[in-house]
Amino acid sequence: MKGLEFDKELVYRIDLPRPEPPEGEALIRVLLAGVCNTDIEITKGYKGFTGILGHEFVGVVEEINHADQRLLGKRVVGEINCACALDSCAYCQQGLGRHCPDRTTLGIFQRDGCLAEYITLPLENLLEVPDHVPNQVAVLTEPLAAGFEILEQLDIQSHHDVLIVGDGKLGLLINHAIRTTGASVTHVGKYPGKLKHLESLDGETIVLDKGTEYIGRQYDIVVEATGNISGFQFSVRHTKPRGKLVLKSTLASDQRIDLSPVVVNEITIVGSRCGLFQPAIDYLANGPDLQSLIAAVYPADQAIEAVEHSKRKGSLKVLIDFSG
Amino acid sequence: MKGLEFDKELVYRIDLPRPEPPEGEALIRVLLAGVCNTDIEITKGYKGFTGILGHEFVGVVEEINHADQRLLGKRVVGEINCACALDSCAYCQQGLGRHCPDRTTLGIFQRDGCLAEYITLPLENLLEVPDHVPNQVAVLTEPLAAGFEILEQLDIQSHHDVLIVGDGKLGLLINHAIRTTGASVTHVGKYPGKLKHLESLDGETIVLDKGTEYIGRQYDIVVEATGNISGFQFSVRHTKPRGKLVLKSTLASDQRIDLSPVVVNEITIVGSRCGLFQPAIDYLANGPDLQSLIAAVYPADQAIEAVEHSKRKGSLKVLIDFSG
Repeated sequence: MKGLEFDKELVYRIDLPRPEPPEGEALIRVLLAGVCNTDIEITKGYKGFTGILGHEFVGVVEEINHADQRLLGKRVVGEINCACALDSCAYCQQGLGRHCPDRTTLGIFQRDGCLAEYITLPLENLLEVPDHVPNQVAVLTEPLAAGFEILEQLDIQSHHDVLIVGDGKLGLLINHAIRTTGASVTHVGKYPGKLKHLESLDGETIVLDKGTEYIGRQYDIVVEATGNISGFQFSVRHTKPRGKLVLKSTLASDQRIDLSPVVVNEITIVGSRCGLFQPAIDYLANGPDLQSLIAAVYPADQAIEAVEHSKRKGSLKVLIDFSG
Repeated sequence: MKGLEFDKELVYRIDLPRPEPPEGEALIRVLLAGVCNTDIEITKGYKGFTGILGHEFVGVVEEINHADQRLLGKRVVGEINCACALDSCAYCQQGLGRHCPDRTTLGIFQRDGCLAEYITLPLENLLEVPDHVPNQVAVLTEPLAAGFEILEQLDIQSHHDVLIVGDGKLGLLINHAIRTTGASVTHVGKYPGKLKHLESLDGETIVLDKGTEYIGRQYDIVVEATGNISGFQFSVRHTKPRGKLVLKSTLASDQRIDLSPVVVNEITIVGSRCGLFQPAIDYLANGPDLQSLIAAVYPADQAIEAVEHSKRKGSLKVLIDFSG
């Protein structure tokens, strides 16, 4: 089968073996897959992953290695963390399989990803996509779920002032998720073309001039979605004393970092990663059309070009079509 | 009066003017004062403070510039943040004067400190010390209150496993505060002589060999009290997924810092600073005797030697006697 493999370098291959679903898993034919910044980080060495990249997809179930055949032939999206589900696992027993210490993660850790024609995933990871949600929207379920994860961790109420820092794809999807709380949302970024996507929604957008350190006020809740240390420091500076800062993108840096304002202002930093899919699918099925977030759709044999496109500054979501 | 002043360098002076209490403040004759790591950080440039150092003391009220004279002649300790207390201040109105944006802070920000014969503080900052609590114990109220602050911010229960990282003076006092919750407490440090102070209490102490990166398990709640980035990274590594990490000491570093495990494991980091004095005084009045935390008491004219002693690795609390 076709797929985009990383092992020291990115290689588009057409001779990959089609995976066999183990007991309890389904074989899924990938229709459309998304390129995420994490994929790009992996090509720089993040997590030391080698194998087929990708963890955002919509596909069709072609085979199920289990007595329960209800999802056969259905269009699905899938949660990316595959937990042990053992009775002895405290995380799995709390419904926190995405923190299971023995988990594998689609295209990130010990499990081949979805930038390929076929994947397998455990049945319990799959959710059916409502018929009226197009593939180009359904494929956004995974990153949108990461936005809704914030609402699972924090009690955001309509009287809260929220600042979102960073106008990448994830930042924009976080904006959609947080607006469902009724909170007042301000979004700062660098790219007018990206922030334009938020035009139809309530709330303020601010294009930062280069070097802007402070926009004049602090917020109850700040979501850092830039993935760089200067964005983190900007976020700390804009969090009220006793306020909350949600850390949404993985940060590692050689830059100087100053955590003393976190202590002095008693800020709470909440690390936030993958979320449950159901709230995201519900939003995609009933909320505004998010197709304006799609920058381009590449055919499978241009998968490497798709990744290159995704690396460009200011790029929105790049998709790869494996259905052809 | 005598006092220890910092302005580019530390100078012990005997010709400082005695302060006059403004309306609403009391003049306090300092009996005994403590040297804190923050004082040492200030001598390295922290906060750009110049003036008389010090924010840990026990003293006697000698004059009150207010109609309410009840504390006159009483032995007191005092909270270090002096808030505006205006009706228009959201923090003061919530009882969070220690986050008032217009506050001054004893010996740290725009207010002379207590490494001197006399200070002034607002009446509402003062608490009377019970007669049976000796000066050498009462002077620990401020740093112990910083330990109890954690209990105001986090709901620590008896089923929680807590790890305290760092066996400095603050770390040891935090141990006392957290044990009042009934939680299981493990304390790691570098100095057997310091951890020995915890011998009479329940719970485990572990002396880390140089280079130890992991002690084999993770904890529900980790308190970082080392003040350095490697201690912070150690703390992150020992926090369970979805666990809490309390940041108790101000951290700034040129070292590489990796925040990605905070996101991947969805750790919550809680910045924690000054606390209310009442729980600390109650503990000092009714709990175990903490005099073993005192390394030495210097007379006022050896104040500079006292600071030098406090800088030594492995030093416990150094006090300066201004009563002579």
